[in-house]
Amino acid sequence: MPSSEDTFLALDIGGTNVKSGLITRGGQILAFDTFPSTDLGGPETLVAMIAARLEALCGEASPSGKPRALAIGAPGWIRRAEGVVVMAPNLPGWKNLPITRLLSQALDIPAVLDNDANLYALGEWHFGAGKGCANEITLTLGTGVGAGLILDGKLWNGSFTSAAEIGHIPLQGVDRVCGCGRTGCLETVASARGMANSARKWIADRRDTTYLGNPDDIDTLAMQDLASRGDPMSLSIFRDAGEAIGIVLTGVFNLLSLEAAVIGGGGSGAFEFLAPSMLDVLSRHLVTATMDQIKVVKGALGGNAPLLGAAALLSAAGYWGRGWVAISLPDTCPGGP
Amino acid sequence: MPSSEDTFLALDIGGTNVKSGLITRGGQILAFDTFPSTDLGGPETLVAMIAARLEALCGEASPSGKPRALAIGAPGWIRRAEGVVVMAPNLPGWKNLPITRLLSQALDIPAVLDNDANLYALGEWHFGAGKGCANEITLTLGTGVGAGLILDGKLWNGSFTSAAEIGHIPLQGVDRVCGCGRTGCLETVASARGMANSARKWIADRRDTTYLGNPDDIDTLAMQDLASRGDPMSLSIFRDAGEAIGIVLTGVFNLLSLEAAVIGGGGSGAFEFLAPSMLDVLSRHLVTATMDQIKVVKGALGGNAPLLGAAALLSAAGYWGRGWVAISLPDTCPGGP
Repeated sequence: MPSSEDTFLALDIGGTNVKSGLITRGGQILAFDTFPSTDLGGPETLVAMIAARLEALCGEASPSGKPRALAIGAPGWIRRAEGVVVMAPNLPGWKNLPITRLLSQALDIPAVLDNDANLYALGEWHFGAGKGCANEITLTLGTGVGAGLILDGKLWNGSFTSAAEIGHIPLQGVDRVCGCGRTGCLETVASARGMANSARKWIADRRDTTYLGNPDDIDTLAMQDLASRGDPMSLSIFRDAGEAIGIVLTGVFNLLSLEAAVIGGGGSGAFEFLAPSMLDVLSRHLVTATMDQIKVVKGALGGNAPLLGAAALLSAAGYWGRGWVAISLPDTCPGGP
Repeated sequence: MPSSEDTFLALDIGGTNVKSGLITRGGQILAFDTFPSTDLGGPETLVAMIAARLEALCGEASPSGKPRALAIGAPGWIRRAEGVVVMAPNLPGWKNLPITRLLSQALDIPAVLDNDANLYALGEWHFGAGKGCANEITLTLGTGVGAGLILDGKLWNGSFTSAAEIGHIPLQGVDRVCGCGRTGCLETVASARGMANSARKWIADRRDTTYLGNPDDIDTLAMQDLASRGDPMSLSIFRDAGEAIGIVLTGVFNLLSLEAAVIGGGGSGAFEFLAPSMLDVLSRHLVTATMDQIKVVKGALGGNAPLLGAAALLSAAGYWGRGWVAISLPDTCPGGP
């Protein structure tokens, strides 16, 4: 059993599930908990509910004392410095919620907050496929398309509340209405949900497919399986999504002269089917580097990325020493420092 | 007459003209010279030719001694640290040219090199429409679409030789071949040359226009005049170009959470006709800020921007003290430091 000083709590609040972990300084997940976001209830109950789950997690694995700190990842629009969730479209009632202060008081440990996609990016950058890169973007293909941007070896925040909002970059020729109310956003065709929606539309249009199930049940996991057996619907949708991601990624690489892009989130399970059209667009339009100078790869950590990114967030916030990066994965970035 | 320690030389090498200036610490242009880039001749003669013009410029205005340093802006792909122009598509024979060392030796003063669009951006940021912004992009609508990016109060360079290559971001639905050999690049429809090409195509297609001159002679200056008198061709081309710029700018704002974009270069003379469709796209797709938190404005310095940007480059390179910013323009950026 490690001492309590060597552990921290990570909380990853998603639109579908809430995940938490008690994690050592070395990146080992000692205890893990997950429950549906709908269990949270309204703003008046959710803090007590989360606090109780986190207390139980600690008691289970680390009865000797408190963890060092708590790192919170939340979806939507947040104010980092104040620790406030301004608005979370997929979490009804979350408006101007000072979640950092409330959880810090309930657990009596320091807490820090960042956007969930930023935690994902920090995780992949410190421990996963983005390791060693000075300038890198991590995309998450989930309910939407999120992103976190590492510039000059630091997470980029920009001038206002939110940055790396790559999911709402408009694409010409795309006419689908987005969850944000706008039309033609990247995530309408390239998020995991967007790709499943494309499949439902394909089936409704009675186009050729080997899928025989209920259209309501289709997801990118099923589509991966279908694509590997030659389903024209899944192959076509992955190709189009890959092209859309490729167009946006090309813009990002040419603008910022990045070394790498990491593709994560549930939809990245289809990476092998997304990659050909994505890399084709990039290879035709990249001007800031040659294709062998950059890399575009699948995330290495899967669903653990945000929990491990929490370690990086705590380190950046000063709650953790410099010695905490102890998971040994090969340095894979071509142009890293 | 200021002392020689208070002046520097700025050299702006363009695909069409070479401009140079002898400039005071306070930003006053004491002497100015311009000649066609074709006069440069080949790589074996151009250094001596430029050096002679710069010497003449100094003798004319500052006979008492040498200027403090030389700042060079060059188009194309450069290696900043080594002072080398790797390749300049519009300047035949410019390959791996160590222009910084050669001119520094010929004039016996220190010299620094950067991309011409970066100098333009530095000029607008220090002295012009981008003044006071921490995070800002300046676009130049010229032969191509260039850009310089200010992030966290510094010019952004990225991982490789070149960054902010916004002109070659591909747009879906655009099928015009670019000077770079690719298809659908922003600059094929939104550079000054691209807009003039659109006009020539419009005339060749015998579509409705009030332009009666030779199609070969049309440029954005003539089109501005036509647009102000209701010409459907010029209005339509500016609207489409504004929309294309708006789409790319939206992506840049949403990715980086910028405060401002400055539109410069010759094509920015048509700003009033480009702005409505550009701002319409932005207002519909911006998610990192509200429209009143950001600004999109026409450059304030015109063709002097690169020469004044040279002062900033020399300052960043340590050849100039911190007291050199003496041009007083109002601080106009909404979110500046």
